[in-house]
Formats: sequence, structure tokens, C-alpha cells
Amino acid sequence: MFKEYDVIVVGAGHAGCEAAAAAANLGSSVLLITMNMETIAQMSCNPAMGGVAKGQIVREIDAMGGYSGIIADKTTLQFRMLNKSKGPAMWSPRTQNDRKRFAEEWRLALERTPNVDFWQEMVGSLLIKNNTVVGVKTALGVEIYGKAVVLTNGTFLNGIIHVGEKKFGGGRTGEKAATGLTEQLTELGFEAGRMKTGTPPRIDGRSLDYTRMEEQWGDENPGRFSYTNVTLPKDQRCCWITYTNENVHETLKEGFEKSPMFTGRIKGLGPRYCPSIEDKINRFAERERHQIFVEPEGWNTCEIYVNGFSTSLPEDVQYKALTQIPGFENAKMFRPGYAIEYDYFPPTQLSLTLETKLISNLFFAGQINGTTGYEEAASQGFIAGINAHQKVNDAHELIMKRSESYIGVLIDDLVTKGTEEPYRMFTSRAEHRLLLRQDNADIRLSPIAHKLGLISDERLAIVNQKIANSDAIVAFTKEQGVQMSEANSLLESLGTAPLNQNVKLFSVLSRPQVGIEDIRKVSSSFDQLLNTFDQETVEQAEIKIKYESYFEKENEIVNKMQKMEDKSINPDFDYNQLVSLSKEAREKLLKIKPRTLGQASRISGVSPSDISVLMVHISK
Amino acid sequence: MFKEYDVIVVGAGHAGCEAAAAAANLGSSVLLITMNMETIAQMSCNPAMGGVAKGQIVREIDAMGGYSGIIADKTTLQFRMLNKSKGPAMWSPRTQNDRKRFAEEWRLALERTPNVDFWQEMVGSLLIKNNTVVGVKTALGVEIYGKAVVLTNGTFLNGIIHVGEKKFGGGRTGEKAATGLTEQLTELGFEAGRMKTGTPPRIDGRSLDYTRMEEQWGDENPGRFSYTNVTLPKDQRCCWITYTNENVHETLKEGFEKSPMFTGRIKGLGPRYCPSIEDKINRFAERERHQIFVEPEGWNTCEIYVNGFSTSLPEDVQYKALTQIPGFENAKMFRPGYAIEYDYFPPTQLSLTLETKLISNLFFAGQINGTTGYEEAASQGFIAGINAHQKVNDAHELIMKRSESYIGVLIDDLVTKGTEEPYRMFTSRAEHRLLLRQDNADIRLSPIAHKLGLISDERLAIVNQKIANSDAIVAFTKEQGVQMSEANSLLESLGTAPLNQNVKLFSVLSRPQVGIEDIRKVSSSFDQLLNTFDQETVEQAEIKIKYESYFEKENEIVNKMQKMEDKSINPDFDYNQLVSLSKEAREKLLKIKPRTLGQASRISGVSPSDISVLMVHISK
Repeated sequence: MFKEYDVIVVGAGHAGCEAAAAAANLGSSVLLITMNMETIAQMSCNPAMGGVAKGQIVREIDAMGGYSGIIADKTTLQFRMLNKSKGPAMWSPRTQNDRKRFAEEWRLALERTPNVDFWQEMVGSLLIKNNTVVGVKTALGVEIYGKAVVLTNGTFLNGIIHVGEKKFGGGRTGEKAATGLTEQLTELGFEAGRMKTGTPPRIDGRSLDYTRMEEQWGDENPGRFSYTNVTLPKDQRCCWITYTNENVHETLKEGFEKSPMFTGRIKGLGPRYCPSIEDKINRFAERERHQIFVEPEGWNTCEIYVNGFSTSLPEDVQYKALTQIPGFENAKMFRPGYAIEYDYFPPTQLSLTLETKLISNLFFAGQINGTTGYEEAASQGFIAGINAHQKVNDAHELIMKRSESYIGVLIDDLVTKGTEEPYRMFTSRAEHRLLLRQDNADIRLSPIAHKLGLISDERLAIVNQKIANSDAIVAFTKEQGVQMSEANSLLESLGTAPLNQNVKLFSVLSRPQVGIEDIRKVSSSFDQLLNTFDQETVEQAEIKIKYESYFEKENEIVNKMQKMEDKSINPDFDYNQLVSLSKEAREKLLKIKPRTLGQASRISGVSPSDISVLMVHISK
Repeated sequence: MFKEYDVIVVGAGHAGCEAAAAAANLGSSVLLITMNMETIAQMSCNPAMGGVAKGQIVREIDAMGGYSGIIADKTTLQFRMLNKSKGPAMWSPRTQNDRKRFAEEWRLALERTPNVDFWQEMVGSLLIKNNTVVGVKTALGVEIYGKAVVLTNGTFLNGIIHVGEKKFGGGRTGEKAATGLTEQLTELGFEAGRMKTGTPPRIDGRSLDYTRMEEQWGDENPGRFSYTNVTLPKDQRCCWITYTNENVHETLKEGFEKSPMFTGRIKGLGPRYCPSIEDKINRFAERERHQIFVEPEGWNTCEIYVNGFSTSLPEDVQYKALTQIPGFENAKMFRPGYAIEYDYFPPTQLSLTLETKLISNLFFAGQINGTTGYEEAASQGFIAGINAHQKVNDAHELIMKRSESYIGVLIDDLVTKGTEEPYRMFTSRAEHRLLLRQDNADIRLSPIAHKLGLISDERLAIVNQKIANSDAIVAFTKEQGVQMSEANSLLESLGTAPLNQNVKLFSVLSRPQVGIEDIRKVSSSFDQLLNTFDQETVEQAEIKIKYESYFEKENEIVNKMQKMEDKSINPDFDYNQLVSLSKEAREKLLKIKPRTLGQASRISGVSPSDISVLMVHISK
């Protein structure tokens, strides 16, 4: 009934969809198995993509030929570049999306991907031979063979939904949980744990008083995630901001005695940086109010997502508290918020390719690895899909470096350090974040994607042209001078000191107050040059000029640290022979099986002196 | 948390959606409760509306201000008027629809209906006081009060899905079953039964060879369901026809020993006139082939619905048989076909308003009453919604007559005769089908809808104008003569005898070979008159002219039978006092509680002599 596939992907959320697309685009025959074809790429929580550090990840996926950025762009309700007032390392694109359109565009994109087949059913177990996965068995008992399998089960594995004191099985509200896989994997020797996440109530937008809230519009000149020519929607929709208050908090507290979080009924740990509203008022008792983002779910629907109000308190407490928020006085709920507990597998059981160490050709991606967030899931799926294809074809592994991508930071953190609570990306997790910017994801990653065959020659050429052009602009500013007489009135108007001698354009542009758009007004030759390039290239040049010295320093650090990263370790190295290692270090090294000395140094419990011991032996 | 609603509707399929819209448009505050807001108006089976007798029902719903016709028109992939070669009583509009757009447009239409609120949860039980329903209790334990409740649970009540020898709980594939309500209702004294229905596998359209099938295009000048000004899609999509063969049948037979239908695992009876493919080859063993309609699921998706191939055989048998159908040699399945068993309540437990006899203000509509089909469900929901509103407001009941609508035939059949197997509408069920045509649903039903307040004065005026205008055309043809000399060459070219004297236009137009479009060519005054009216009016006039004598005879029969229908019976009449009634008749009459002598006469087991007895007593 089924041919033998190269890659079978189980689950069709953000991780599964990217995994299927990536493997198929590399040439693998792919079967995407989902419990319900109507809910492919369903956004389980907020209808939005990107945000701080997450927006950078979407740009990275897009630069490498993934689909998340394209789908998000096509279905954008509102675009904002967050942190625009800070340095460019902090700039983070974020979109509000139409939930239904997002899921539909993903499904259509996969249907248009020639090598992707679909099958709707629950996978009940894996087929395994000689510690290698060879396929899956469905709930109906169908055996489907595949050379590699990517598991992306999200919150479905033994999912239990909590609302107040009530709980019931489910993978999302209204959807069945998946059973069987955890039991088989633990029998095979995998360690499993429980995690928890949650979602806010959904509201009838017709019942809200928007005049009592602050409007929040998108950017006037909206940007985009994708480096490709996606046609963006012509319009944007408004969001709103409102706030909780002490009455809201008091009402919520009345429900604490029935909270599954506080009464110990929920065992799994929740995402620290995406806390429920009851968590927030509990942990930050001194705060008088918390921000609530009122976000539309789509172009036409009146359903509203109440961002910042995730909760698993009893539904009547949710309701009573909501109606004390300005603008929500007459709010009607569509669906209550809830918490969900699900199985995950501590990701230290994976190698940096996202293949499991115990079972060959078996890959894990997304929430099954203990992460939270669509972007974190999508990027893992993307890398797992690539590595599944590479493995099946005896081709080289793709291991993303921490110094070249957030995706590298994410996977290295997971695999090297593990995670006790749902892992979310932040800029602070990336030691080289100055280099890992949303504006240069294409420059950083296109060569890798091109070498794999995920992006075309044409696409790489465009990136190389962008590099050459922005370098040409920088070079021009280092050669071309600016006349004191021409510049000084402008500089004064910008609130910066006048020149007392003629200098190069570069020098003036280095000043934080002076933008490239200002200077082109006083230098017609510069203006002429800039007119020959597009906006993106000009922006790239400006960033290079303004932050050149910082980037140089950061690159030096990367190069120094790279020496540690270049010292590779055989994953099967027998650490027992190194008697001078501490006992903890030996145990951890045997478990994590680091691929480089750099990775070894990031394992908690491995000390600098352990690294010295290792360095001596590796150098031999 | 919730106000007391006028009407609570449980379930948001075709029945629930029409019920909610109708009650709300009449002015009731309505709460629509669904297990999943993402699947409101999900088409569970084929992506199509209308067809023989069913298309007439959609027109009737539309004429009365329901939404089904509007939604179907907006989301039409292809329109065909079936049986156009037969008499106008057989003409039946049918659309192929975009499954996702259909569901989305329904949800948006309900969101735009001011009095409809939404709540996502499973209803676990009813709140009942003094044999009157006063609300519902959800699975989370929330009590919601409502003055009337409409249950439209579809296939969800204790739903069990069968594929070959496997079975699992579910309301549709991938969706949870609903539990609790049947148990409570049977405790309250309701009789419950099991029914069964099924659906075919879904196929990857990219894997089909369409050159081996027959193309089936929509009508060149597509019609529509709605009498309102819905904007229709500009384009249509092609469907295809192919056929099973003896190889397919042999393969299917190999699976019979694992068929849940033939091995007795499925207890409920399935729809006789919408049989599974295994049923067809079993019951019609002499047939060498069966027609298969290959229907797209939407404008953009490659998913294909295999109409005519409903099956619950094991998935590998489904697959092997499919690949022996011309064009399906390389077919890939997306989802297997399956059968589903679910609870229903024999509809003889209802009155003609669709209110239950046991519990006041509780209404049932759709598959819960033992029917099959979207249109049958939608029309019941529509009538239940109206009557729920009327009951709550102490307003008159709406009982649809058999002589004025298919909806009347449907409900009278259900309530008076009950049904042992899923009830589907046919033209043959309507004794006055000559009058119950798709072309005159507006003429038949607009006055009723207008009196209720469901359609506007303007809309009624348009219908009255259509009547007046078409009557004017008919009158003109009865006055205006046609010259032998002018008409004879036309008549000969149409293959009908020439005139031997001058006659009225009406006389020529009565001939079956002669169309109104032909005659306007030879009568300039007639042509001028027709130019002042729209196409619909001209068509209506033509039908009136061609079938005038038939309609007159039919109307006479209706009038005669109406005397029986006008003899009303008190539903609480004590039949025990009529000793001359047969025992069976007495039992049935006590159970069904007919509202008229006409209804009593249609109860099986009530003989003409029983009716005579009744007539004597009622006349008193």
C-alpha cells in the first residue's frame, strides 16, 4: 500500500511541516503523517510569528530555503520591527497572522512540494531493527517503511488538558491525544519527562470596547521575513493594548485554591518566560498591572486572542477577572484558556544533528525536545529534515554553529545542556548576537544552504551581489570626503558637533545621530551612488559603517573561540581512560558525547581543568 | 458567567448553524455550543450541496431566509442543474463546493449575525425542571441556562469509527466522540437506537491520470441556490467520471471477511440510497461496473473526494481496489474511508415542530433524528430554530405542510412514520412534487417566512412582482394570436406539425417541442414584452404555460386532501375511549399524537376504517 519512503515525518505542526519540506526539497521521498489533515500547521497558541530572537530564527530558516517566513509573510495582518530604537542586533521582526490562512497556506505549500505525500492517522509505534528505525506502525496497524523517521509530536503525547480542577485527555482542546509512542520509547531506553504549557481564553471581539484601549498599529513601511519576492497583503490590521489591575489580580487570586498549577496537580514545568497570568501575579506580586495585547485572529473573524492572559484557572474565574480589564467589561468568551501537560524527551539524548543517540535514523524536533515556540520548533524541524535526508544518502551532517546562527545556539544549548523547563530563545542566549542579526541571515547562511542544494544559484548570486554592493558603499564612504561648509548646518540640526576640518563620509556616518539618509542630502555623488541600489543594500551598508569596529572585535572573539570548536572529538571516545577527569565530567561526557572541545566546555559539570585534560589527549 | 439565553443550540453542523441563525434572526439571543470552533460547518462527507430533491430543499431554506444556499453559492466550484431533460419538477440544482471556504463562510456568516454567541465545549447533559429543559451542563461542569435547547449532535453521540476489523471512538475521523447525553436522555424515557453511515477514502489528485477519465463540466450558464444577490465565483472547476470494473469488485470481495458491515460488528443500519461500494457489489451482483465521481475538494488543494466509493473495508483492500480503477493506477491515499456508528433517537418521539414530546422546549434536528444528508439536516435545524424561538415567545408554531414544501414532507415522514434506516429525501417521497419545484420555492414559501419576520418587505415584494410578471406573460399568450404564415416554418424546423389555422401563442407554447425562446423570434410584440422581464420571470412563465393543466389537476388533489389536513386533532385526545379503533391503531395514535386527520392517515398501522372512526368523533 505504501512504498518505502526516504523520510517519514510524524506530526504536521511547525516542526513537521519544515522537516517534510526540507527533506523533500533535497530530493527525499517524504511521507507526512498527521492525525488530522484539516489541522496541518494549526497555530495552537497565538496567531503570530517572530518577535525578539524568534524573528531572527524565522529569517534564518528563510535564508536557508525553509517556508516559515514565506507563509508568515503571505498571511500577515500586521508587521512590526521590534526594538528598532536599539542596536541592529536587537531588531526583531514580528507578524500578527491570520490563523486560518496561515494553516491553509502551509498545507498548499506542502501540496505543491513534489516529493511530499500525506497520510492521516495516528502513529502508535516505531518499527525498529538492529537499533535503527525502519518505519512506523499506525493505530490501524498499517506498517509504513521509511529509511529515517522524524518525530514532531508537539503537545500530543499523552496530552492532558487542565482547566481549574477539571482535566481530560487531549492534544489540543477539541483534539485527541496521541498514545503509545512514549511507552515504546521508554522501553527502548529513552528517558521521558513531563512539561506543561498553556494558552489564554479567546474572546468575542464584538463584545469589546476598543475606545478604552490603546491602539497599536503596524510599521508604516512594513518589512517582511522572507528574502524571496512574496507578495504581501496590501493592508494591515490594528491591535490594541490594555492592562490588568489590582481588581483583576484579586479576582484571579480567589481561584488559586483551584489552580492546577498551585495545587500540584500539574507535575510538568511550564515556560518561565511565557508565564500564565496567575504565575505573573504570584511571582511579581509587587507589579500593579500587566500588559495585555488584544490581537485579532484573522482578517474577517471577530475572534480575539488575549496575549498575556494565559491561564488554567477555572473558567468562571477567568471570565470574572477578564471583565475587570478596561475594554473587557462586557467581554464574551468563545473558549476558556487552559494548561496542557505532555511528554517530552530530554534533548541531551540527541546528537547535534537532532538524531537520537539510542536509535539510528530517528530524529526528534520541536516540543518533544522540551522547547516552546513556533520558531524554535520550525527551525529544529528544518534541521532534522535536512539531516534525515543527509543520513539516508550517506551525505555530510549539517551541524549549525553557535557563531553563525541562532539555530546553532538553540540546538547546541538543547543537546549540550538539556532543559528542565520549556526552552525559549532569547538574544541573551547567543554570545555572538552582534553577528547574528535579522538583517544578515542571508549573508550568514545562504552559502550553507546553497551547498546543500536548498537554494538556487540565482538566489545565492543575489546575496553575493548584496554583499558586494554594500561593501562598495562602505568603500565609497571611506574614500569620499565631505566639506565642512556643506555638512555643518546639517550636523548642527541633528544635534551633533560641527566639523572643524574636512573628513571622510565614513567618519561622519559613524556618529550615532547621523543617518545615511541625512548625508545623501549633502553629498550629491553619494546620493547618486545610493540611487543605484535597493533599500536593503543601503541599510546593510549603514549597519556595516555604524558598527564596523564592534563587528571586528566580535569576529576576533569568534575566531579565537573557533579553535576550541575546531578541535573535534570522536563521539565514541572512551572517557573512562582519562583518570584525571572528575567523576561528574566523565559521566556527563559519556552521556552527551560532545563533538568538539567547544561543546564539551559548555556541558554543565565539565570544569576548565577537565577541558585542559581533554585538550591534552585530543591534541595527541 | 453566561446570561440566560433564549435558545441554546448544541452542535454546529448544517443543522446547528441553521438553527442558530434562524432563531437569532427572529430576535432570540442564541448560544451556539460546539466541541471545536475550528470545525464549525465542516462538511463531514462530500464537498457538495443539493442534488435530486436535496437541491429543492436548499432552495426552500433560502426562500425562507436560511443561509445554506447563500454559503453554497459563495463557495461553488461547479454548478449543475440535474435532470434538465426531464420535467421541471425533477430539475435539481447541485453544487460542488470548496470544503474549507464553505466552513469558513458559515462561521463568518454566524459571526455577523448579531444575536449569536459562541462557546467551545462538549455538552455533557441537559438541565431539566418539571419536564422542561432549562439549559445545559458542559463537560467542564459549567451550567448554562436557556429557555429552549436544540440538539444537533450529528454522528458524535457515542460515535465509533470502523475501518476493517479496527474500531475506535470518534465523532469524525481525528475528532473526539461526545458522551453523556444519550445516557441521560434514555434515563428520561427516550428510546435511542444506533445508525451507521460512511465516507470514501480521500486521494492525492497529483497521483491520478485524468486522461483516463471522462471530464464533467458544470453548466455553461450556471444557476444558483439563492434568491438573493450573492456574488458567484467567476470560474468553475472540472470534475471527472470513471468506473469500477470486475477486477475492482473481486478485490473488494477479498476483504468482505474483514468487513465490519458483513461480519456483524456494525449493528446500526446504513443509508440504503447512499450505500457503500461493498454494499453495491453485494446487492447488485449483476452490475459489471459502478460510476465513480472524482471531485475536487477545493479551488487550490489537490485533495480529491471519490464519490461513489464509500467503504469501511480494511485500508489495504480499499487501496488495492482503488488502484484498479481507470485513472487511479498510481493513486495515493490521503485518508482511508470509514464507517461510523452513532446514536439517534427515533423521530416519532417528536412533534411536527421538532420539539420532543417528553421534554418541553427541547428540540432535535439532523442526524440525531435518523436522517442522512446535509440538506435534510439543515432544513430540520432551520425549522427547529424557528420553533424554539416561537415557543419561547409564546408565538404560533410553524408546521410545514406536505403540499407546500419538501421540508414539510421530510418532517411529516419522520414524525409520523419514523425511520429504521438513515432517511434521505427523494422526489418520490413527495406526493405533490409537481408543485414542489426548485423554481417556485420563493413563490411557495416567501409569504410564510415574511409573516414570521425572516424575510424583509422588499424581498417579499420582489417575489410578488415575479408572480405578477409571469402571470402577465401567461395572460398575454392567451390573448395574442400567432399567424400560421409566420409560425409554420419554425414549427416544421422544430419537428412539430404546422398550424392549419391562426391560434393563440399559448396553444403553440403548450407543445413540448416549442420553447418560449423560439416563439419570441416570430412574434415581435411577444419579444418586446419579454424584454422587459428578467430571465427567471420568463422561465417561470414558460413553466406555467407548459404545465398549466397538470398544475391545475394537482392543485385540485391538494385541495381535496387539504380537508383531511384541516381536520385538526387535539394532541392530548384520549384514543382509549374509541373502542372501535384497532388495537394497533390505538397504540400508534397514542404514541405519535397526530395533529390532523391527514397525519393520522399516514401512520402505518392506522387503516382507512380507523380513520372513519376518527372522522366521526372529530366532526362531533
